[in-house]
Amino acid sequence: MNATTSTNTSPTTTATASALTPVTVIGLGLMGSALAAALLDAGHPTTVWNRSPEKAKPLADRGAHVAATPQDAVAASGLVIACVLDYDALHTVLDPLAATGALAGKSLVNLTSGSPEQADEMARWAASHGADYLDGGIMTTPPGVGSPEMMFLYSGSEAVFEAHRATLAALGDPLHLGTEPGLASLHDAALLGLMWASFTGWLHGTALVTSEGTSASAEAFTRIALRWLNGAVSGFLTTYAPQVDTARYPGDDATVDVQIAAIDHLIHAARARGIDNALPELLKSTMERTAAAGHGGDSYASVIEVLRAGAQPIHG
Amino acid sequence: MNATTSTNTSPTTTATASALTPVTVIGLGLMGSALAAALLDAGHPTTVWNRSPEKAKPLADRGAHVAATPQDAVAASGLVIACVLDYDALHTVLDPLAATGALAGKSLVNLTSGSPEQADEMARWAASHGADYLDGGIMTTPPGVGSPEMMFLYSGSEAVFEAHRATLAALGDPLHLGTEPGLASLHDAALLGLMWASFTGWLHGTALVTSEGTSASAEAFTRIALRWLNGAVSGFLTTYAPQVDTARYPGDDATVDVQIAAIDHLIHAARARGIDNALPELLKSTMERTAAAGHGGDSYASVIEVLRAGAQPIHG
Ligand SMILES: NC(=O)c1ccc[n+]([C@@H]2O[C@H](COP(=O)([O-])OP(=O)(O)OC[C@H]3O[C@@H](n4cnc5c(N)ncnc54)[C@H](OP(=O)(O)O)[C@@H]3O)[C@@H](O)[C@H]2O)c1
Ligand SMILES: NC(=O)c1ccc[n+]([C@@H]2O[C@H](COP(=O)([O-])OP(=O)(O)OC[C@H]3O[C@@H](n4cnc5c(N)ncnc54)[C@H](OP(=O)(O)O)[C@@H]3O)[C@@H](O)[C@H]2O)c1
Repeated sequence: MNATTSTNTSPTTTATASALTPVTVIGLGLMGSALAAALLDAGHPTTVWNRSPEKAKPLADRGAHVAATPQDAVAASGLVIACVLDYDALHTVLDPLAATGALAGKSLVNLTSGSPEQADEMARWAASHGADYLDGGIMTTPPGVGSPEMMFLYSGSEAVFEAHRATLAALGDPLHLGTEPGLASLHDAALLGLMWASFTGWLHGTALVTSEGTSASAEAFTRIALRWLNGAVSGFLTTYAPQVDTARYPGDDATVDVQIAAIDHLIHAARARGIDNALPELLKSTMERTAAAGHGGDSYASVIEVLRAGAQPIHG
Repeated sequence: MNATTSTNTSPTTTATASALTPVTVIGLGLMGSALAAALLDAGHPTTVWNRSPEKAKPLADRGAHVAATPQDAVAASGLVIACVLDYDALHTVLDPLAATGALAGKSLVNLTSGSPEQADEMARWAASHGADYLDGGIMTTPPGVGSPEMMFLYSGSEAVFEAHRATLAALGDPLHLGTEPGLASLHDAALLGLMWASFTGWLHGTALVTSEGTSASAEAFTRIALRWLNGAVSGFLTTYAPQVDTARYPGDDATVDVQIAAIDHLIHAARARGIDNALPELLKSTMERTAAAGHGGDSYASVIEVLRAGAQPIHG
């Protein structure tokens, strides 16, 4: 795929640092700086570039080669990782050098956040300039970069992923989701949606149990909430996932109708304590729409039928 | 507290089965039957009663003593566990025998679901009839009863909890939240709210990644979603909980403003795929209200300020 592939050696082998894949990182914001630092920690020859050059200083102190221009940065390595604010910024940096043919033969890994459609378009743009394209979604914040627990989701070129899997593993656990370039970004959005919903449900519950001068603290409630999320709730998701895949939702344990009855306790208790009930009310009305669609005796997984039927597709 | 306390012996000791605390279970619906079965499995002399007597048959086959009347059932044990449909059903069963003084000296553990206010009122009612009262919330479904992973939340009499902790451990992991009787029910509602929010966020994400004939399955997405929930998301909750307790929300890693920008990717991607966006739209507007309240540069934990200020308290 490119000249660096043959030097792609796992950091856990006995290879010297100089045998590790050289990497270029473009963009040294909070995230780009964390990426470059993790690559340096793993021993990769690392070239960096940032629009505001002062952000390269701490990395230079740790051994990074600082390129004077994006062109120089890209020339330094076969593997180029970009992480800037958004796709507009990415094109601002890459368009001029792509026009000179500098991307030809490169492996471009783009960790800038964007929509699946932007990733698809970027893959076509990269191909038109001779680069092989891998899109990525970073499922952690800068302090989590470098931890093997943290997921980095990738989609697009399988060749880039396979050739550079060991290098990408220096950033976090690399998962390849498929060759459609938009898949990583789609999963990123889906997981963030799950996160915000969980955060808000947790904060609503925290507001409830810490109201009215009860002795409960957010820390004590959160210990219980984490056991609940990582135990029973995770167990339900594991049970429900194949139900979604087969579109059959047996309500053996807990039906939508039973949940509708139970959510009234929550709404009542929150209302009595002056807590905003918009989230529980929305959840209840979603359950009621599910029951009205004939799923009252089915499991909660059947709510997906209502979400999927939710609106007419709007493209663009 | 009552005569059975002295025979309260952990099932893990060398005591014979007959040395274990005798227990009465009132209500043999799906949940009451699971509770009685777990007590029998642990070797407790178990007396059962149900309005519809045929539901006692499988338990009788496993060694339960079947009482002919609620009065007989309560007379059989110092520890009485009740689990019926709701508080109306509970009063229908207990009021007549309480009037005869049959509850005096008993430890009454009520696992019927209800509001914190109903638990408070039940505790007063029990005290007026000479019973010591422990309220409980069961954080699992019937198949999970008996597993030490599953949480049973209790509040109210500490004496009952301490005297019968080992017996209650046969049902699941017993946690005492405090002496206010409503605390278990309040936590139950809060945890269910977190569950429904997480379920719905997960289903929305599942709808997103499985749309348009991508190769993704709900099972594959759920494996990633569980790592996300139990890893990074749990880590955020652990970081945010003390922020809530101190009402200081430093936005070091990810600010509300940054999340507002990111949620547009989700809303756009879901809209393009015809997926109901009511949940993400609500989450976004909640974040926007949080930013408008001056927390744009704070962490997501500051959303609790908006939830707490959400409505005027309405009692009753
Ligand atoms: N931070 C996180 O927790 C996190 C998590 C997952 C994904 N991400 C994604 O990672 C990407 C970078 O995030 P970040 O946290 O590093 O943001 P940041 O700290 O704000 O850094 C933004 C970077 O983009 C550069 N940039 C902006 N406009 C530019 C332009 N017109 N031309 C050239 N460079 C430009 C900035 O250069 P200057 O230094 O010159 O301004 C800087 O390097 C974003 O897409 C973000 O969504 C971040
Ligand atoms: N199932 C769960 O996953 C779960 C989880 C946590 C908490 N809970 C709570 O546990 C309680 C029982 O749930 P369940 O699943 O066992 O429900 P269930 O299967 O519907 O059983 C209801 C029980 O209540 C009895 N009952 C109803 N009305 C009565 C009346 N007027 N007089 C006397 N008995 C009456 C029923 O007796 P008959 O058999 O004669 O009808 C039966 O024993 C509920 O409060 C529920 O919220 C259940």
